Amino acid sequence: MAGSTIGKLFTLTTFGESHGLAIGGIIDGFPANFPIDINLIQHELDRRKPGQSKLVTQRKESDEVQFLSGIFEGKSTGSPIGFLIPNTDSKSKDYDHLKDSFRPSHADFTYEKKYGHRDHRGGGRSSARETASRVVAGALAKQLLVHQGVEIQAFVSQVGKIKLSENELEHLDLSLTESNLVRCPHPQKAKEMEDFIFETRKKGDTIGGCISCRVAGIPIGLGEPVFDKLHAELGKAMLSINAAKGFEIGSGFSGVEMYGSDHNDIFNEDGSTKTNHSGGVQGGISNGMPLEFRTAFKPIATLIKSQESIDKEGNRVVVEGKGRHDACVVPRAVPIVEAMAAIVILDFLLRQHAQSV
Amino acid sequence: MAGSTIGKLFTLTTFGESHGLAIGGIIDGFPANFPIDINLIQHELDRRKPGQSKLVTQRKESDEVQFLSGIFEGKSTGSPIGFLIPNTDSKSKDYDHLKDSFRPSHADFTYEKKYGHRDHRGGGRSSARETASRVVAGALAKQLLVHQGVEIQAFVSQVGKIKLSENELEHLDLSLTESNLVRCPHPQKAKEMEDFIFETRKKGDTIGGCISCRVAGIPIGLGEPVFDKLHAELGKAMLSINAAKGFEIGSGFSGVEMYGSDHNDIFNEDGSTKTNHSGGVQGGISNGMPLEFRTAFKPIATLIKSQESIDKEGNRVVVEGKGRHDACVVPRAVPIVEAMAAIVILDFLLRQHAQSV
Amino acid sequence: MAGSTIGKLFTLTTFGESHGLAIGGIIDGFPANFPIDINLIQHELDRRKPGQSKLVTQRKESDEVQFLSGIFEGKSTGSPIGFLIPNTDSKSKDYDHLKDSFRPSHADFTYEKKYGHRDHRGGGRSSARETASRVVAGALAKQLLVHQGVEIQAFVSQVGKIKLSENELEHLDLSLTESNLVRCPHPQKAKEMEDFIFETRKKGDTIGGCISCRVAGIPIGLGEPVFDKLHAELGKAMLSINAAKGFEIGSGFSGVEMYGSDHNDIFNEDGSTKTNHSGGVQGGISNGMPLEFRTAFKPIATLIKSQESIDKEGNRVVVEGKGRHDACVVPRAVPIVEAMAAIVILDFLLRQHAQSV
Amino acid sequence: MAGSTIGKLFTLTTFGESHGLAIGGIIDGFPANFPIDINLIQHELDRRKPGQSKLVTQRKESDEVQFLSGIFEGKSTGSPIGFLIPNTDSKSKDYDHLKDSFRPSHADFTYEKKYGHRDHRGGGRSSARETASRVVAGALAKQLLVHQGVEIQAFVSQVGKIKLSENELEHLDLSLTESNLVRCPHPQKAKEMEDFIFETRKKGDTIGGCISCRVAGIPIGLGEPVFDKLHAELGKAMLSINAAKGFEIGSGFSGVEMYGSDHNDIFNEDGSTKTNHSGGVQGGISNGMPLEFRTAFKPIATLIKSQESIDKEGNRVVVEGKGRHDACVVPRAVPIVEAMAAIVILDFLLRQHAQSV
Repeated sequence: MAGSTIGKLFTLTTFGESHGLAIGGIIDGFPANFPIDINLIQHELDRRKPGQSKLVTQRKESDEVQFLSGIFEGKSTGSPIGFLIPNTDSKSKDYDHLKDSFRPSHADFTYEKKYGHRDHRGGGRSSARETASRVVAGALAKQLLVHQGVEIQAFVSQVGKIKLSENELEHLDLSLTESNLVRCPHPQKAKEMEDFIFETRKKGDTIGGCISCRVAGIPIGLGEPVFDKLHAELGKAMLSINAAKGFEIGSGFSGVEMYGSDHNDIFNEDGSTKTNHSGGVQGGISNGMPLEFRTAFKPIATLIKSQESIDKEGNRVVVEGKGRHDACVVPRAVPIVEAMAAIVILDFLLRQHAQSV
Repeated sequence: MAGSTIGKLFTLTTFGESHGLAIGGIIDGFPANFPIDINLIQHELDRRKPGQSKLVTQRKESDEVQFLSGIFEGKSTGSPIGFLIPNTDSKSKDYDHLKDSFRPSHADFTYEKKYGHRDHRGGGRSSARETASRVVAGALAKQLLVHQGVEIQAFVSQVGKIKLSENELEHLDLSLTESNLVRCPHPQKAKEMEDFIFETRKKGDTIGGCISCRVAGIPIGLGEPVFDKLHAELGKAMLSINAAKGFEIGSGFSGVEMYGSDHNDIFNEDGSTKTNHSGGVQGGISNGMPLEFRTAFKPIATLIKSQESIDKEGNRVVVEGKGRHDACVVPRAVPIVEAMAAIVILDFLLRQHAQSV
Repeated sequence: MAGSTIGKLFTLTTFGESHGLAIGGIIDGFPANFPIDINLIQHELDRRKPGQSKLVTQRKESDEVQFLSGIFEGKSTGSPIGFLIPNTDSKSKDYDHLKDSFRPSHADFTYEKKYGHRDHRGGGRSSARETASRVVAGALAKQLLVHQGVEIQAFVSQVGKIKLSENELEHLDLSLTESNLVRCPHPQKAKEMEDFIFETRKKGDTIGGCISCRVAGIPIGLGEPVFDKLHAELGKAMLSINAAKGFEIGSGFSGVEMYGSDHNDIFNEDGSTKTNHSGGVQGGISNGMPLEFRTAFKPIATLIKSQESIDKEGNRVVVEGKGRHDACVVPRAVPIVEAMAAIVILDFLLRQHAQSV
Repeated sequence: MAGSTIGKLFTLTTFGESHGLAIGGIIDGFPANFPIDINLIQHELDRRKPGQSKLVTQRKESDEVQFLSGIFEGKSTGSPIGFLIPNTDSKSKDYDHLKDSFRPSHADFTYEKKYGHRDHRGGGRSSARETASRVVAGALAKQLLVHQGVEIQAFVSQVGKIKLSENELEHLDLSLTESNLVRCPHPQKAKEMEDFIFETRKKGDTIGGCISCRVAGIPIGLGEPVFDKLHAELGKAMLSINAAKGFEIGSGFSGVEMYGSDHNDIFNEDGSTKTNHSGGVQGGISNGMPLEFRTAFKPIATLIKSQESIDKEGNRVVVEGKGRHDACVVPRAVPIVEAMAAIVILDFLLRQHAQSV
């Protein structure tokens, strides 16, 4: 496969550039005869879309999904589900000045070198706009997972140096995530994060952040050793999101400093564990405890500020972002993280079912 | 695929349990007509093998690889390369007490629940012994990559709280990695790490660690957007190693706290960059700068110390490790990290070649 | 994968039902920077489309392809190529009588049983309309192959009992294929075939046929033993076309009756062979001689005539085709055979390139 | 994948040359906790092995399979099953004269050109010896399928021009297949075939043949449209067997001559059909009727007789087979056809299970 497909049994293949006619995808392997609520899918897209609040980029894209196949009389048919999201607010001219220049730390340079021919408008295929297609597939997967008792909840746990403490993380009320623009379920920290993002934007700059995700109700046994471990595929899926630079599950990087006798999760008699340093995965297989993982996002590369750079010939140029860009990726990336988690988990659920002869 | 295969064009499929007759694998897609130095492969296995020093587990396994096919008159034939590593020091009795019990934070519980039938001896399929097969394939890939100018160097950068500082990381002499038992190229920190591992083992406990990896000489253009990004596949590969709980590339989790204007890597006129916060990857594609990534390993779950646990019926039991176990996984995991990196990079190199019509 | 994707490196994933909004697909892995002639693609679609002549079904579908991504300034970008073909002449009512009944030897029964929920209109996903998407991908692949000197030519070699003789097959002028409605390059036999199809249609019946295909200019070395042999993948691709029931390469079923000493293709000094009983493939790998293979198509199951059948409850019913159907599939299947051949060959070409390190 | 793997969920990857240390493979995705009878597997190998009767090649290979993993206490563990078959009777010298020459219609030429480096001994990787590994995996799959009520029975239906008539095919007693050396369940035709094979061998020549296969008890719903149709994957699997040149299902090439009104299989009230021209597959999905398909095998290319040929430099040479070869491939290919059928069907069974959420 050339890289546009994720999944083995439940698969998503996406297409589309930021400034073409439309983006979209094909979802294959979704079980037949399952009732589909298209409003819920649109709702997830609205959580990701630009222009949804004053905190995010002011591009106005309606991001309306059109389903072309695979759904009949409100239910899935088992056939592939094709869908489109038309590109409506394509100000291609905003990008003319970038035609021959490379933005620092952006995919401009690597796409040019790899493919020799690049749609420079809006980042082309490397634009985060592609993730809207992932949200569609994820929202579909989520509906089936909810039906199976699986609940996926992502939230912003860090923006710049503003970070939820261990104690705050333990006492979160995740129903508050959508109560603020930054999607952090701790209202006070959320306020600090928002203020900081506004401040950063005013400077023409950008800032990084982290998204944490909890998945409750996951059945025991998902994950396929030795290479397709549950957390390995989750890691791949998260790292495939634009601007992601790190992934950890359970204790992650902080577990490195612990003794085994402190880190090991002692069993309760019902097979659950007293702690969850494992983050819900042991030996690459879900153990029934909630999945807990975290993804790190770097600051967005496109700045409004001027930056030194080079053009295709290696001449020194100055670039600045004339488009309308986010100052921090994480508020809009929350539904993307949930979508990718849903895609990976449904795929493993189907793989697990396959073995039950 | 059921999880025992990695790669799309250069693939490794492994089989084998800790205490069966042998472990081994099949390497497919290795280009034909390439001279193979089997001693170099055995050398990498020796870096991973138990009993290689007083720092690691004292199990005595010779880990000698036997090639069964795909190599003729010293060169690859283009046909699949089958290989075996016999299991020689299988003290199955060391594990009899674990037959019906689950070690905390080990794969015992999840394998039992997933498969309903488990080879409990030495962890069975979940044993890190399986990684010896990865080292064979990685060592083969490395030979081809070296020929292409790619150099992969992993090293221990953290054990417990003992950690190389930013400044130390910048001034490392990687030729020193093999000069000490812990495989940290900073001799003084290496000594501290070794002492700490010995001390931990004396307590019957275990400790976590980090391995950093640098890959120089990598061609521009490796990685297949949007899902099979170079760092996404590297992340999956690293997270598939036993005990791995986190992965980051470039600035990773620390980049979260940076402004875009500080984080962006400014170009030199030749297309290289002044800094390397990107870790050699932009938009999921290598940009020609060295890959820099880091993997977090939790403390090994099997302790010599007693631990409370449960058996298959949910009764409370006490388990202790009677086998011979490592107190810290990272010294022996260095060649495994290098092997997985080599496998991923060679696979992407072949995928890149495919496009050059 | 759930069955909607073909190829390993050059891949096509299709979606769409006969009577939804549109059908379409995503082509991934097409090399970048290659100039694309969209008129040539439309030309191939026109060869497949209904209503093109009085010989075929009189449904009037314009079958106009719209490209949504992956092509920029007339050249491929290396990113996935998404495309749509809107469904315009969807007389869903023609199928209302089939909602609860199963046409004999049609996919009605198996789709109902497999998926439990079926879009009965026009055969839904099982309709040959899906093959239009294959023609798009095939026409794209063909452009690249022509550039490499590969020429793919399919033609009708049999309709019912009217069949080209061995002698006629050897002396064909393949430039005549498009000179008649049935796409048989032997004008006299073509006339007989056309007459026979008209006669069959008048009876409300259908008839089978064979398509032969020759591929000249194919490089030596395509095909990946042992499972992905060139003729095995060609066979799979051909058998995946609606109504296909048989495939043979080279001497095929008639070679069974030959002695080895007669069947073996004796070499010329330049490595070509005096005969081509092998059909261009030895050991699963192309040998540089033209590929020669043949696909058998059964008579179309949907008849205008009445047929006895059953409904979902197993009650006896009488069904008749009220839609507008072909009486013989082969004239319109010629471009489909060529398309599938082009897809398979380009995929193998890329796989071969991957090995050239 | 580089061609050595078949299957999506139930997979077999093979390795090994005719004259290396061993051949073997890895079976992945076999459900856990299933009791395995290794004697039945050895029994299938014995049906394929050389030297089993005076009709076949007199090479004496014991073909004893050794299982290395994945089976514990007599049951599958769900982990990959690694196995070996040592090469015992490797008379490499028999092949020295072929080192620089190409046998006509053999894989010698294409392997040399594709890989540039070839193990010429006994055909190397292109030898039919590789199929022994397929028989191991197939025999394993068959045990599970038998447990599910699926019965796979292949038999020789043609040798040269000696062929079972339609009438004979309809009245076969398949329990007689193993009652004669040629594996044709019609004793009189079997005798004719045997005599003809002996006669052909005496001339130093070879002859082709056909194997028919019937699969009873197959559940409705196997097969994944549109590309992975049941008969398309069966076709690929059969065509991947050495010397196979054609495949047909149900009416196949003869159905081409039929009218739809004669060809359509009329339903009984229980959903079964009065005839089975479809061969058990409609729309690429099993309909519950027996699968019926046929595979054509060309005469073996290696002759004892002298043949004109060329060497690597294009010089004229004369080659003759000094090894011990079969005069007709079909008697020993019967268990291979059954094995490949079992592999394909079990893979689809698992894929079908995956969808039952």
